[in-house]
Amino acid sequence: MNQIDSERDVQEPSTHLLKTLVGIHAPSGEEARLAGYLLQHIQKEQRKWKVKPEIFTGPEFQDCIILKFGEPRTAIFAHMDTTGFTVRYGNQLLAIGSPDAEPGTCLVGYDSLGPIECYLDYDQEHHALYRFERAIERGTSLTYKVDFHETKRAIESPYLDNRLGVYVALKVAETLENGVIVFSCWEEHGGGSVPYLARFIYEQWKVRQALIADITWITDGVYPEKGVAISMRDRNIPRRTYLDRIIAIAEKNRVPFQLEVEGMGSSDGRELQVSPYPFDWCFVGAPEERPHSPREKVYKKDIASMIKLYGFLMREL
Amino acid sequence: MNQIDSERDVQEPSTHLLKTLVGIHAPSGEEARLAGYLLQHIQKEQRKWKVKPEIFTGPEFQDCIILKFGEPRTAIFAHMDTTGFTVRYGNQLLAIGSPDAEPGTCLVGYDSLGPIECYLDYDQEHHALYRFERAIERGTSLTYKVDFHETKRAIESPYLDNRLGVYVALKVAETLENGVIVFSCWEEHGGGSVPYLARFIYEQWKVRQALIADITWITDGVYPEKGVAISMRDRNIPRRTYLDRIIAIAEKNRVPFQLEVEGMGSSDGRELQVSPYPFDWCFVGAPEERPHSPREKVYKKDIASMIKLYGFLMREL
Amino acid sequence: MNQIDSERDVQEPSTHLLKTLVGIHAPSGEEARLAGYLLQHIQKEQRKWKVKPEIFTGPEFQDCIILKFGEPRTAIFAHMDTTGFTVRYGNQLLAIGSPDAEPGTCLVGYDSLGPIECYLDYDQEHHALYRFERAIERGTSLTYKVDFHETKRAIESPYLDNRLGVYVALKVAETLENGVIVFSCWEEHGGGSVPYLARFIYEQWKVRQALIADITWITDGVYPEKGVAISMRDRNIPRRTYLDRIIAIAEKNRVPFQLEVEGMGSSDGRELQVSPYPFDWCFVGAPEERPHSPREKVYKKDIASMIKLYGFLMREL
Repeated sequence: MNQIDSERDVQEPSTHLLKTLVGIHAPSGEEARLAGYLLQHIQKEQRKWKVKPEIFTGPEFQDCIILKFGEPRTAIFAHMDTTGFTVRYGNQLLAIGSPDAEPGTCLVGYDSLGPIECYLDYDQEHHALYRFERAIERGTSLTYKVDFHETKRAIESPYLDNRLGVYVALKVAETLENGVIVFSCWEEHGGGSVPYLARFIYEQWKVRQALIADITWITDGVYPEKGVAISMRDRNIPRRTYLDRIIAIAEKNRVPFQLEVEGMGSSDGRELQVSPYPFDWCFVGAPEERPHSPREKVYKKDIASMIKLYGFLMREL
Repeated sequence: MNQIDSERDVQEPSTHLLKTLVGIHAPSGEEARLAGYLLQHIQKEQRKWKVKPEIFTGPEFQDCIILKFGEPRTAIFAHMDTTGFTVRYGNQLLAIGSPDAEPGTCLVGYDSLGPIECYLDYDQEHHALYRFERAIERGTSLTYKVDFHETKRAIESPYLDNRLGVYVALKVAETLENGVIVFSCWEEHGGGSVPYLARFIYEQWKVRQALIADITWITDGVYPEKGVAISMRDRNIPRRTYLDRIIAIAEKNRVPFQLEVEGMGSSDGRELQVSPYPFDWCFVGAPEERPHSPREKVYKKDIASMIKLYGFLMREL
Repeated sequence: MNQIDSERDVQEPSTHLLKTLVGIHAPSGEEARLAGYLLQHIQKEQRKWKVKPEIFTGPEFQDCIILKFGEPRTAIFAHMDTTGFTVRYGNQLLAIGSPDAEPGTCLVGYDSLGPIECYLDYDQEHHALYRFERAIERGTSLTYKVDFHETKRAIESPYLDNRLGVYVALKVAETLENGVIVFSCWEEHGGGSVPYLARFIYEQWKVRQALIADITWITDGVYPEKGVAISMRDRNIPRRTYLDRIIAIAEKNRVPFQLEVEGMGSSDGRELQVSPYPFDWCFVGAPEERPHSPREKVYKKDIASMIKLYGFLMREL
């Protein structure tokens, strides 16, 4: 019965969930809103899951959430935050992470005077600013207004990076028997939650294998609809023996995948790499077009292959 | 009586203390001199304090000092080090942190041949060098010669960043009932003490709320004599829910304050953010003119508002 | 007898060991090969050592190795990895660390089709690429083909940085009574092992004194054949009181040494500096010509002085 329920979830309801996740305003530092939604969702859905997880949340975890299933060996890290902008002085904006948008992009947020829907612009020195009918309070965060498009082959929306990673983690949770799922904060802007999350799961359960469920880029070597990307390196270099085990599992189970090799970019994996705990990590995620723009695009085949590969990896690593 | 003593301290003697702190040569890596002075001062003054703190010092803390008062929930971090210069080869100088001074600035220090009073200069490629009657030993550190000016409204001196933060922490100590005060090292040059200090206070007392008592900049949005700055972000972004609590306490208690929003700069807060402990942090400090120059200037109203706000925050957070 | 054996080792066999170490393909992320060799070597040689160390290895240490002798107070850190290149897409190469080589340099490695011996080239925008008779698999690592030259005065070879540091640590091990030797990973490419190695040795044995056995540069202030360099600073600044103790030991024991003062460069020391453990650290290593090139050159006098100084430091610190 659970099986039937979860199969049904893979179809229509799932796009609905992703659309909801994408629409929650939660740039780095303000993940509390998304965390609140996820906790409600998990409380409601877990009765359909194969294994009911132990949930770790509260002040010791700031706005992060840890789910522990069975006897874990491997942890999935999916960051909850997005890029965005902070209102500085006058109509100046500062970037949160690395947003990439054109003048005229619609930005939304809230301050004590109410909801905001304003427009992005740039001055002659390419400094970001907003156009709005009133002044916005200092420190207010703004994110892209969501325009979610779905076709038979692809999804186009802002913030697939990384609401899609969160979504994949929730899909994997449905059938997960042993493992940890971590929803982390601040990934787009300097990090800071992964070190204590790593400490916790290492000290509690000696877990030191990690998979980074995040979204990567379509490039001259990673193509649309060719499967999830297994990243052999980005700015950081994971341990080769761990990489080889992941690639072997993907090959054995005939999941479509692509090998990514980059010199730039980083992820929650970087923070695991330099944490005081001996984590092996690997970035495994679908590639997208137009990263950090209001029109990120991911192909459904690649999402399906990402979910499938995570299932095998969590069982076999 | 203690009350009377400490009130008296707020007046004339206090400027004397600040002047003394500013005059101690202790750039990053050589904080031992200042730590020695502070320990003596604390030993002497603590009998006048409302609560006598437990003092943590010694090799396990390098040159840092931790004071623990009562049942702590929140820690003040005040860094002891300053910017400066290191003598390289010949008459070359390397920066410690980011000093900002003109040719002709007088620099002081010591090497095995005795005290040094030399002059800063720059070559045609803007490399720093010294002019002195003899060669200075490799690795010798130099700092600005102190010229301390006080008017009715302001104090002008090098190294108000961060001897003024240290001074404020000592003023707050006089009436502090519950809390931790941390005197840290290396803030101006890459950090390195905050991670183990954070580990200690988190493991010992589960303290995970922090306030960064440091000096910030007068800018196009932060003005002189408008009160202490509460920084909503710099290079790093603190957790919004913690920020909101701090702002609410400042408003409720009608302490003059200003909201700062920056994209650059960082503090001991950055190291708390990325430490393996779940610290909330916020930079709360008076603004200054001419940061890192021999003529930093801070207004007395802003110092008073900084001391006052710390009092409320340590009680109410 | 052990004495005689170890004296013999100082002569001819030692060059043989260094040559072997230099020839093992182990860039950052692929240290497993070198670690495997070192474990075999240590198992075989330790019976000749003054004290038989406890050996720590296995998944909790990834590819690192810790040797513990007697009652340790000080740890030697020697990184095992080297710079190199990763094959990206087509014939593109990405740097591992900062290799510095001319077009035409011979590079070697392995992929599933067998051993590789190809040539380095650069395109017009100075992007690295390889020239080879077949395509090399994505993610394959390449290192310089070793051409090892020894004269009466010097050794010339790639990867003296840091196989020479590993070699020195093994020489020191022969007579070490109390101390820790750590063989670390990823130093050339962002680090990541030192934080957990530091945690382990601090938590196990309260060791918080460290020496970085690595190779530095011949510059306008550090000369060939003038002795091992004691680095007073690089990008990071160690604690002055620890530095002074090291310099005093070198002086007292009349080991030839030079004081280095730099504003750039870093080492495993940086990771100790910012770790959540209160480590004092100092870089102590021979200088070389042409760092990170296929023709690094170190003078034998400087190697001898490095080994000698480490002996004194491990006894007297």
